Amino acid sequence: MSFNTFGKIFRFTTWGESHGTAIGCVVDGCPPNILLSEKDIQSDMAKRRPGKSKFTSQRKESDKVEILSGVFQGRTTGTPISMIIFNNDARSRDYETIKNKFRPGHADYTYFMKYGIRDYRGGGRQSARETACRVAAGAIAKTVLKKLIGKKFKIKGAVIQLGILGCNKNNWNDKEINKNPFFCPDKQSVKLWEKYLLSVRKSGSSCGAIIELRASGIPIGLGAPIYSKLDSDIAGALMSINAVKGVNIGKGMNAAILSGEAELR
Amino acid sequence: MSFNTFGKIFRFTTWGESHGTAIGCVVDGCPPNILLSEKDIQSDMAKRRPGKSKFTSQRKESDKVEILSGVFQGRTTGTPISMIIFNNDARSRDYETIKNKFRPGHADYTYFMKYGIRDYRGGGRQSARETACRVAAGAIAKTVLKKLIGKKFKIKGAVIQLGILGCNKNNWNDKEINKNPFFCPDKQSVKLWEKYLLSVRKSGSSCGAIIELRASGIPIGLGAPIYSKLDSDIAGALMSINAVKGVNIGKGMNAAILSGEAELR
Amino acid sequence: MSFNTFGKIFRFTTWGESHGTAIGCVVDGCPPNILLSEKDIQSDMAKRRPGKSKFTSQRKESDKVEILSGVFQGRTTGTPISMIIFNNDARSRDYETIKNKFRPGHADYTYFMKYGIRDYRGGGRQSARETACRVAAGAIAKTVLKKLIGKKFKIKGAVIQLGILGCNKNNWNDKEINKNPFFCPDKQSVKLWEKYLLSVRKSGSSCGAIIELRASGIPIGLGAPIYSKLDSDIAGALMSINAVKGVNIGKGMNAAILSGEAELR
Amino acid sequence: MSFNTFGKIFRFTTWGESHGTAIGCVVDGCPPNILLSEKDIQSDMAKRRPGKSKFTSQRKESDKVEILSGVFQGRTTGTPISMIIFNNDARSRDYETIKNKFRPGHADYTYFMKYGIRDYRGGGRQSARETACRVAAGAIAKTVLKKLIGKKFKIKGAVIQLGILGCNKNNWNDKEINKNPFFCPDKQSVKLWEKYLLSVRKSGSSCGAIIELRASGIPIGLGAPIYSKLDSDIAGALMSINAVKGVNIGKGMNAAILSGEAELR
Repeated sequence: MSFNTFGKIFRFTTWGESHGTAIGCVVDGCPPNILLSEKDIQSDMAKRRPGKSKFTSQRKESDKVEILSGVFQGRTTGTPISMIIFNNDARSRDYETIKNKFRPGHADYTYFMKYGIRDYRGGGRQSARETACRVAAGAIAKTVLKKLIGKKFKIKGAVIQLGILGCNKNNWNDKEINKNPFFCPDKQSVKLWEKYLLSVRKSGSSCGAIIELRASGIPIGLGAPIYSKLDSDIAGALMSINAVKGVNIGKGMNAAILSGEAELR
Repeated sequence: MSFNTFGKIFRFTTWGESHGTAIGCVVDGCPPNILLSEKDIQSDMAKRRPGKSKFTSQRKESDKVEILSGVFQGRTTGTPISMIIFNNDARSRDYETIKNKFRPGHADYTYFMKYGIRDYRGGGRQSARETACRVAAGAIAKTVLKKLIGKKFKIKGAVIQLGILGCNKNNWNDKEINKNPFFCPDKQSVKLWEKYLLSVRKSGSSCGAIIELRASGIPIGLGAPIYSKLDSDIAGALMSINAVKGVNIGKGMNAAILSGEAELR
Repeated sequence: MSFNTFGKIFRFTTWGESHGTAIGCVVDGCPPNILLSEKDIQSDMAKRRPGKSKFTSQRKESDKVEILSGVFQGRTTGTPISMIIFNNDARSRDYETIKNKFRPGHADYTYFMKYGIRDYRGGGRQSARETACRVAAGAIAKTVLKKLIGKKFKIKGAVIQLGILGCNKNNWNDKEINKNPFFCPDKQSVKLWEKYLLSVRKSGSSCGAIIELRASGIPIGLGAPIYSKLDSDIAGALMSINAVKGVNIGKGMNAAILSGEAELR
Repeated sequence: MSFNTFGKIFRFTTWGESHGTAIGCVVDGCPPNILLSEKDIQSDMAKRRPGKSKFTSQRKESDKVEILSGVFQGRTTGTPISMIIFNNDARSRDYETIKNKFRPGHADYTYFMKYGIRDYRGGGRQSARETACRVAAGAIAKTVLKKLIGKKFKIKGAVIQLGILGCNKNNWNDKEINKNPFFCPDKQSVKLWEKYLLSVRKSGSSCGAIIELRASGIPIGLGAPIYSKLDSDIAGALMSINAVKGVNIGKGMNAAILSGEAELR
């Protein structure tokens, strides 16, 4: 069974391959009468866009989102919002050489065994390029939440560990996050991270990272009570992103060592 | 709740407004390794296309379907198939005059009451133009079924009543159906229908119609046993088309007068 | 794929076979804080209950519904409401003789071909006994709607045709409907229907019927706009009931002969 | 929106409160013709059952599962399998004293804020007793998988950390897991764990734990490719269990420090 939809009341379906004509998504269930323009989405797209520094994918994409439906005279109408992002830098030839090879750490082999066919150009559907569509859908979700919940609602994220290097979370500074190419919230760690990642790149290797998300102003009781409870939907969503292998909520795995008297925060 | 998706294993989501940039749909759950090209879809689109005769909508649309994803080197890959149809003849100005009016027999008023906003250009999302997307998704479904079930699988449809005029079903001729602008299967009725519809048009009026669908070679046991059984899904799907107000399966409402001994066919 | 769930926000899943221990359903998505007791459900169950007259199934069932969850101190809690109806008159022996036969007009053969196994006792899952669970879920839905929409909301149903006999709908009398064993709204037709049905029974035959449902006080804009629009969900639901082969909404199939000027009501 | 269903093709819906009449679940989508009896389920229920040692909940429940539908003559029929577990030890009076209090670390307050009503007896629907229904559904899933995949399919689980104490995973012994009340796979750690947990209990406190699950013989390509991929569904499912706050798959969060050359296993 193929399943490319996420959400229940507010739902989106993503489509597209890394080196196809375009990628996109359809958001269904967006409330009507919300002010929405492509500009609201573009600022989040800009943060994700490849080719911005030597530390990210070198692919050159403008990642311009075009809204094709569901918005009339600057407002959502309650009907499905279709968004499209054309692929500009889809150099398929680059992949001809690996046409008959399976890349380690990617899902090439799994796709081939599952479907008996695979689009080998940049990983096809398995490419992390799919996440661009989530960013677009997420930008709409944020716009809706700001309208519905109000100014109290805030959500932010940062990279708090890069490979073997952590950062000092006591130095967390929201404004710093978008000033460095690593989305690191601790200004003092940036230099070290840069030096480290340069050496990793030079050696032809790579490394992982840990991201921390902080949301505030969330209404009590959001989500379903058991299956599809907020923790569950967040964990399921994050774990569906390529390369994500762990999710902690609150104390996460460290909750195991908490005692009954422990102050939770 | 907005809901623009149909199907379970093979599923499609449609989007788009009558006078927006484009309309389209995303087919999810299509089996991999099926030969599929835009040509397979275009022949069904041609049958539905407006502007072909004076008896249909005068809107001029080429209704060219472009496949954006899910097909690689002429074969489906098992990933979502996104299709787009650009609107060429979207003369929004034509609708400025009815901007503040609700058209009878349309869903203008309902949309406005439900959402507090409506796209008045040609009915927006409520336009029957949405059905173009179903034709595209249906063409893929037919291609898949032909491959999976084989040559025994056949499906055909015709208009068997036009306004107050029926036709002689004993004269049903498959080849006749696509030869006249009414999809009438009975050659002898065509002339009369034409005369009748011309007079209806001249008087500034309109009329309804009845369609008959015939499928054969269907495997026994298709569909779920109760909810989402084949009859139920067919009835639900047909009744979601604008202006459809009745669905009969087999003897339909006439089953009421059948006796226990009645020969069912 | 098996699918025994109906609904989206308010959803129910039915289970059980005609001659198993019990049948039942789970209602999920019922709003909290609605006064609900088994008594609210039992009055609707009584109307459906078999064995009440010689004209219905002679099976003796009290069809007592027991609520097992989701209600606390007389009020719904927002959690799933599980209901169970024990089968009392499940005389499986009656069916031993048809163990190796497929009954015409039933789904025995289809189930066997689909699953390779069938519960031949009274049709097992294909038995119309399943509809008892819908009545229970529907009774809860009505209770909720009365609370949410208020007194303006009304829904009623009657049998308007029995085999070859219609009735005079001008004589429709709500109070008459539950006074005769046919749920006929026209007192003057009852005698004739009784005579007719007795003769049908005597000849060892059976006949069909047509039901008319009337709902009023429904809020504008209920349901999704296209797929899962109210017409579509109603048609799909009705057509999932055993033996239902046709659904007309409003003018139904007769809408075909309406002209553009026609007064719709 | 309430949502008490998990799964897509094989799906189950759970219902029931800690101190109601019963709890249960409905499994829909189970393949037909699989040998299944209550005995297949009871062995897994026994492992979960409370009251077995002083280290678990002292509630006395036999947790006997009764299958009410979907199984005929010892085999699944493809129709929904309804299971019920009656609550024997539902001493509601025990909770009268906390009727007006919200317990820390439980969802009492959230339920009250979300629904405006709560079943305070033992946590009502929020009680971990709900997981008994998952065990029952899971036992059926395992039975099906053993039949479909064969003997190669194996799944096992153990507690690898208890509060502040880990165990030596090099000593993992499958047979040991069910021999001690902690499901610890390392015989040498059991004594220490016992001593530790006794002291925790004596001080009126509690602690958390970490569980490790190991599955083998899983077919390549199981699950959907992106949303609802296996990692995502597992994470979502585990995180929907009360008190679970973290999920690692494979190296989990430690994947962050892996270099590109790292041997993954």
